[in-house]
Amino acid sequence: MKDVHAMPPDRGRLTIRSVGLSGIRKPLVVRRDDGVHHLSATFRLAVDLPSERKGSDLSRNAELLAEIVDRTAEAPVGSLEAACSSIARELLVRHPYATEASVEASAEYFRRKGVSEEKRSFEDYLLLAEAHARRAGDGAVGLQRTVGAEAVGMTACPCAMETCREELLREYPALRDASLADLPVISHNQRNRTRLLFELDDRAEVEVDEVIDAIERAQSSPTFAILKRGDEGRVVLNAHRHPKFVEDVVRDLLSGLPEIFPRLPDSTVVRAETRSEESIHKYDVGASHRISFGELRRSAA
Amino acid sequence: MKDVHAMPPDRGRLTIRSVGLSGIRKPLVVRRDDGVHHLSATFRLAVDLPSERKGSDLSRNAELLAEIVDRTAEAPVGSLEAACSSIARELLVRHPYATEASVEASAEYFRRKGVSEEKRSFEDYLLLAEAHARRAGDGAVGLQRTVGAEAVGMTACPCAMETCREELLREYPALRDASLADLPVISHNQRNRTRLLFELDDRAEVEVDEVIDAIERAQSSPTFAILKRGDEGRVVLNAHRHPKFVEDVVRDLLSGLPEIFPRLPDSTVVRAETRSEESIHKYDVGASHRISFGELRRSAA
Amino acid sequence: MKDVHAMPPDRGRLTIRSVGLSGIRKPLVVRRDDGVHHLSATFRLAVDLPSERKGSDLSRNAELLAEIVDRTAEAPVGSLEAACSSIARELLVRHPYATEASVEASAEYFRRKGVSEEKRSFEDYLLLAEAHARRAGDGAVGLQRTVGAEAVGMTACPCAMETCREELLREYPALRDASLADLPVISHNQRNRTRLLFELDDRAEVEVDEVIDAIERAQSSPTFAILKRGDEGRVVLNAHRHPKFVEDVVRDLLSGLPEIFPRLPDSTVVRAETRSEESIHKYDVGASHRISFGELRRSAA
Amino acid sequence: MKDVHAMPPDRGRLTIRSVGLSGIRKPLVVRRDDGVHHLSATFRLAVDLPSERKGSDLSRNAELLAEIVDRTAEAPVGSLEAACSSIARELLVRHPYATEASVEASAEYFRRKGVSEEKRSFEDYLLLAEAHARRAGDGAVGLQRTVGAEAVGMTACPCAMETCREELLREYPALRDASLADLPVISHNQRNRTRLLFELDDRAEVEVDEVIDAIERAQSSPTFAILKRGDEGRVVLNAHRHPKFVEDVVRDLLSGLPEIFPRLPDSTVVRAETRSEESIHKYDVGASHRISFGELRRSAA
Repeated sequence: MKDVHAMPPDRGRLTIRSVGLSGIRKPLVVRRDDGVHHLSATFRLAVDLPSERKGSDLSRNAELLAEIVDRTAEAPVGSLEAACSSIARELLVRHPYATEASVEASAEYFRRKGVSEEKRSFEDYLLLAEAHARRAGDGAVGLQRTVGAEAVGMTACPCAMETCREELLREYPALRDASLADLPVISHNQRNRTRLLFELDDRAEVEVDEVIDAIERAQSSPTFAILKRGDEGRVVLNAHRHPKFVEDVVRDLLSGLPEIFPRLPDSTVVRAETRSEESIHKYDVGASHRISFGELRRSAA
Repeated sequence: MKDVHAMPPDRGRLTIRSVGLSGIRKPLVVRRDDGVHHLSATFRLAVDLPSERKGSDLSRNAELLAEIVDRTAEAPVGSLEAACSSIARELLVRHPYATEASVEASAEYFRRKGVSEEKRSFEDYLLLAEAHARRAGDGAVGLQRTVGAEAVGMTACPCAMETCREELLREYPALRDASLADLPVISHNQRNRTRLLFELDDRAEVEVDEVIDAIERAQSSPTFAILKRGDEGRVVLNAHRHPKFVEDVVRDLLSGLPEIFPRLPDSTVVRAETRSEESIHKYDVGASHRISFGELRRSAA
Repeated sequence: MKDVHAMPPDRGRLTIRSVGLSGIRKPLVVRRDDGVHHLSATFRLAVDLPSERKGSDLSRNAELLAEIVDRTAEAPVGSLEAACSSIARELLVRHPYATEASVEASAEYFRRKGVSEEKRSFEDYLLLAEAHARRAGDGAVGLQRTVGAEAVGMTACPCAMETCREELLREYPALRDASLADLPVISHNQRNRTRLLFELDDRAEVEVDEVIDAIERAQSSPTFAILKRGDEGRVVLNAHRHPKFVEDVVRDLLSGLPEIFPRLPDSTVVRAETRSEESIHKYDVGASHRISFGELRRSAA
Repeated sequence: MKDVHAMPPDRGRLTIRSVGLSGIRKPLVVRRDDGVHHLSATFRLAVDLPSERKGSDLSRNAELLAEIVDRTAEAPVGSLEAACSSIARELLVRHPYATEASVEASAEYFRRKGVSEEKRSFEDYLLLAEAHARRAGDGAVGLQRTVGAEAVGMTACPCAMETCREELLREYPALRDASLADLPVISHNQRNRTRLLFELDDRAEVEVDEVIDAIERAQSSPTFAILKRGDEGRVVLNAHRHPKFVEDVVRDLLSGLPEIFPRLPDSTVVRAETRSEESIHKYDVGASHRISFGELRRSAA
């Protein structure tokens, strides 16, 4: 059979940076300290293409993805990111003409959590991972990995709370009682979606549960599937005792990381992104930042 | 050329209820009392197919849609629903083998509104319309029309407010002052999305701006693109003075309709559907109901 | 604590048909003959609300969903539909004021399949299930169940194939050779998404793998994750030897069901819905039908 | 009223790169040589935030967006990109503490086109624009602009065509006739979505209709809303006479640009991204590249 992909291009002589598959869904089995997790992951994988080839042999991508991912049904992998790294390395093996391979994956992830022990249930999060493999002139392969997660929580607005306090003080003079000075008052609050991603060197690792915990602590409050009446009150109260702008979510999240991940080197870069689906507007507000652990440590000093 | 559509089916002899196009986007120009509106509408149109034909001639659907909709650039139509009705009737003309035609359309709709006159800006809503044409045995064509809209607003939870009040009364005894009995206290609030649809007889008409106004009154508060600090406080206060479950939104919306639309006959059927994107949960809560104006009037009596 | 839900409504006295949760994600473990499947399901659950109550106690929905679904981690359930039926029955137990409960669920489902044994890999499908429980006057609970699936495959257009044949015959007289009379010629082909749902009586059961197989046979060709060059050619050839309108997909799918599911009673109702994401248009074409097994059997007689 | 945004952060001292609004919808009126276009645009706008401020004054973003965009109802703007540039500049005026402002917008765009003059109808495309304003140390504001579009068309696979040809030659020896050597044979074909974006210097301009035309020429064939039988055949034939991998789409698109846009300077950078929604797979394949006009011109030399 004619190998059309290996032929020279009809027109133009360009190296193409990225050719691959996207939106491919696969079941992936991950074993962690807390047990086995069955994920459904979405993958995107690509390699570059030299100028003398018409096409990239994409069926190899589907084959190797199947091999690496299907194998986890019997031999679970350690993490979504570990699967991405294996795939990225193998892409360079099977595409000998390529110099770069990139893999991105996301997968829903359930954790049993609850406002109290007896009200635990599965809460859903998103795991995020990337791996970029690059072949050097001497054939050695370098790897860059990104690991992270997204968590949905709640933010309450600190500005509207102060404006409402002033208005309520006008309407209700009894509120001026000194014992009510720190009374949490009404504000708008809403669903908030926050991502945190670590660009990791070498053998550095982060535990996704710690990533999720860090995000939830930076929001005004985590949210829960099961909330009986009293719990609901406590969650609302907690959120209004920690009112946060999206700016606060990003700042509190990032500035707390050196303490949570003391072993990560200064060269680790983190990206935080948060979006509040405002209850008082039809649009969202958001904030994002990218910074190294070194800068974070210096800014805290 | 061979007319493959008109041939008998290869296998099976079934009338098919619905064959057509979906996800087709068109610009539509509507002239109303307040001026000309340029809409971008999504259409879905279908007819039934008798058992003796292999296929429906779908290119006729695209042709007539283009004719009717393109013409509005020069001669605007009165409403999205009027366009749907014309299309439904014309579908039966161009598909002489069909006995039923259905058209559904949705289009984003902007209204200039504001928390005050000088803070007016465009708020986005969704217009919804359907038309179902049916050919009777004598060739006469009957038409059923549905007209409605969707508006995004805000709900504040009445239950969490009472739970928080009890908790705050425990923590802050000064709150027991009689003058604070009706103080609005913290609760969770969130983005709410509500639809209202009218199944209209004969020549009955509803004005979409009145539909949107009715929805916004039934939510805890409408929301706005531009809110300076004081406005934001007033919107939050307004929402907390009208805390609503999704059940309240549906009930208040429906029970208020006979007064807003006094001329609609008892046979008019309305459908309400509301969904709150809960700030304290990762999932949504919703309510829906379908009822006739006759029943609404009797329940109010 | 004040039970705000149990209070009478502030305004209006309407029974509300449906109040509940939507978009709630849960891991669900299903054990079938071929092994254990770990699904990630999206649930929607609702009950009706009598006119004298302000609200439905929605935390009960989240609790019972967690109980029934979490339990499957240790004791897998037999099917997504079985989980829906348990949830629907339990909704009526925990909402004693309700007379109807409805549960809808969808879940991605992976099957290992391949164009040949050694090219097997996971293909993704969608499982669909519904359960509606109704409390009769004597307290007895009736249950209606719906089970189905969605599969993505490929359709090739029979009409464009004949038009292209005529054009090619004009341009290439050598094609008029009698031995080329059944040569499959070019047409447009595209991604097709087809759903089949069974509304089941009593204890009737359908096996989802058979549902998926039925759908894939009714499309021009199933599609596969791994296709080496020769396989790709065979899939394309197979699709062009079975060109199908969306009408053909629905008709072939439905008319083949009595033979595949001989034990289903005449009262079983099936719904088929198909959508082709046309390669030659920016919009989709689709067809749908709803029919009983009795009618299907009579039309085949 | 207390200005909570202007207060120092509660914790952490970090400059935040990006704080703003997203998903905000606005009607925008654009006047071009071919007439007035009424667009519905989605905007995202953000500025950076210095470490000494708790929050960015986001209501200013909504206000200036409304002012600039609402004004176009009376005084249409020249392009979506021109609106983005005005907004980006104004963001730096209203956020005096910010050093960078970014605006991204997308808007559906209809062009009347047809396979022939009498079958013209509206086809839908996507306009894309970005503007990044940066305040230098001396207060001068620099601006980077990006302009582009997305078009949906069709690709037919060149590899499957050759594999099918070999198979058909085996099955149909009469096909070996020399006059049939260039007969286009069956392949898989599918919906293709391609974007082209120009990063523009200074006063360089590109005409979006030329961008869309360039994309459609690089696909195997453009697609149309209205296709009667003969037209459909011609579109299918055209696509199979120009079979293209996603790699070909990117390469043909980029390598043709210097001829189409001869006046753009070497420093102009273009980004192309294409995705084919494969008919033979459940996933997509794609390719992307980013290159300067200088490199494009040198590679063609």
